[in-house]
Amino acid sequence: MIQHTVVLKLKYPKGSPEEKEFLSAVAELAMIPGVLNFQSLRQIGKKNDFDYCLSMEFENMTAYEAYNAHPDHTRFVTTYWAKYVEKFLELDYAPI
Amino acid sequence: MIQHTVVLKLKYPKGSPEEKEFLSAVAELAMIPGVLNFQSLRQIGKKNDFDYCLSMEFENMTAYEAYNAHPDHTRFVTTYWAKYVEKFLELDYAPI
Repeated sequence: MIQHTVVLKLKYPKGSPEEKEFLSAVAELAMIPGVLNFQSLRQIGKKNDFDYCLSMEFENMTAYEAYNAHPDHTRFVTTYWAKYVEKFLELDYAPI
Repeated sequence: MIQHTVVLKLKYPKGSPEEKEFLSAVAELAMIPGVLNFQSLRQIGKKNDFDYCLSMEFENMTAYEAYNAHPDHTRFVTTYWAKYVEKFLELDYAPI
């Protein structure tokens, strides 16, 4: 099992229409085949300036790569990610 | 519920005795009162150079602060964290 996470900061302030649009678009990623345990989380730590985290699990690397290449994902990246996200960090986890 | 995570890079290479010592010490943090769903994870993403993630949950901020102040935690920080960790990033999450 692989947990894929992306922690991010939006270009738009909390409570803005753009934030709402972005989070609605994010929620649809959960429907892409192979995505398990999808979560949108608020980053609340004071020691960094990220606002959100998207977290999802994949059974294996094949499922992860299929998600990355899926047209709903690539469309999300060009339509929303590239326009709404100021900075981000991808962190992927596997059991030790 | 609050999820507290710390992603980190060790000063020592994978497979070293120091890595093993560090991971053994980390595992004992799970025993501190208030810590739920403790996990030590390997960071496998190629887009950053962190090696591990410690993840745990707390019922609320009071439990989180009690963990931070607990002598077993502060002793771990001075005995292991300060000596073994090259860099780290704390990321804390709450439901949106």
